[in-house]
Amino acid sequence: MSLTDIERLIQLLAKLPGLGPRSARRAVLHLLKKRESLMLPLGAALTEAAGSVKRCSTCGNLDTTDPCAICSDARRDPSIICVVEEVDDLWALERTASFRGRYHVLGGTLSALDGIGPEQLDVGGLIARAAAPEVKEVILATGATVEGQTTAHYLTDRLAGLDVSVTRLAHGVPVGGELDYLDDGTLTAALKARRPI
Amino acid sequence: MSLTDIERLIQLLAKLPGLGPRSARRAVLHLLKKRESLMLPLGAALTEAAGSVKRCSTCGNLDTTDPCAICSDARRDPSIICVVEEVDDLWALERTASFRGRYHVLGGTLSALDGIGPEQLDVGGLIARAAAPEVKEVILATGATVEGQTTAHYLTDRLAGLDVSVTRLAHGVPVGGELDYLDDGTLTAALKARRPI
Repeated sequence: MSLTDIERLIQLLAKLPGLGPRSARRAVLHLLKKRESLMLPLGAALTEAAGSVKRCSTCGNLDTTDPCAICSDARRDPSIICVVEEVDDLWALERTASFRGRYHVLGGTLSALDGIGPEQLDVGGLIARAAAPEVKEVILATGATVEGQTTAHYLTDRLAGLDVSVTRLAHGVPVGGELDYLDDGTLTAALKARRPI
Repeated sequence: MSLTDIERLIQLLAKLPGLGPRSARRAVLHLLKKRESLMLPLGAALTEAAGSVKRCSTCGNLDTTDPCAICSDARRDPSIICVVEEVDDLWALERTASFRGRYHVLGGTLSALDGIGPEQLDVGGLIARAAAPEVKEVILATGATVEGQTTAHYLTDRLAGLDVSVTRLAHGVPVGGELDYLDDGTLTAALKARRPI
């Protein structure tokens, strides 16, 4: 049996996060049923994006241009830089359409266990950008995890000497969330940060 | 913002079974990090397989050749035809390596609700193949679902006039389960214990 083309496709698809060998097989059958409408466009889109998408040398965002569309958009406020761990965090914030400043993608978090120090992240680029005179505020939007908070603490120290205010995202009850389902840490944080109505 | 290449890729990936918009975004970031080792090979494999993989005109299997590798393998017993619903069921049986006959892929099950009658399935091809003098046995390996068993009953009636023994997979297949989700051991046992209807 020489199912090489199909087997190879299954093996490659199974490497995607969220797909195992079994779901990769289902995906391949689905693709083979939708050759014109899905399989060929997906193959072309992958090849095309692999060639066209690059990392923005300013902020670390992924886009077809360098600098990226956000960094080169004159309507976006250059005085605020929002620091995120990864590009998907940037995408999540962009979907809210509630932030009109610039971003800086670290490329991860500090992690002693994984051997990731400040040199492995784009900390140098952030410090250099934050030192520019037009920058007034740096928002540390790293995750509310131990690694994310450790990274935020480290960056706060590094940014201390510069003339910028350093802020972080508010902790609290997620909008639409029920108190009953929240963890103690979030509830404690929400209580401590309570605000007058 | 012109994230067209990336957004298009996310939209296409999100159409795969098992991936939603969120996991498609994660997958795209993963792919962009592994351009050479995963993204470009996957793009090429998709385009290649879309062109090379065809349906076997004899049994309905998917392969790069027609007739498929199983139908054209002289070492496989032409006297037994195993009838399955879909190609993934064929793959599941092949993984057990315990069946050395030929297959016939129906392309689904009878379903009055979905308007799928015998004309929508490859029943005619099966009857024609089963009428050949070398065929001694037809194994009905449709799923142990209501639709699968209905289809098996219908095929038993259609095959009644021919000089073949009609068998089904042994019970041991969990009722309500689909072949594709079964472990190899259960499938092997069910194949070995097949009984005349």
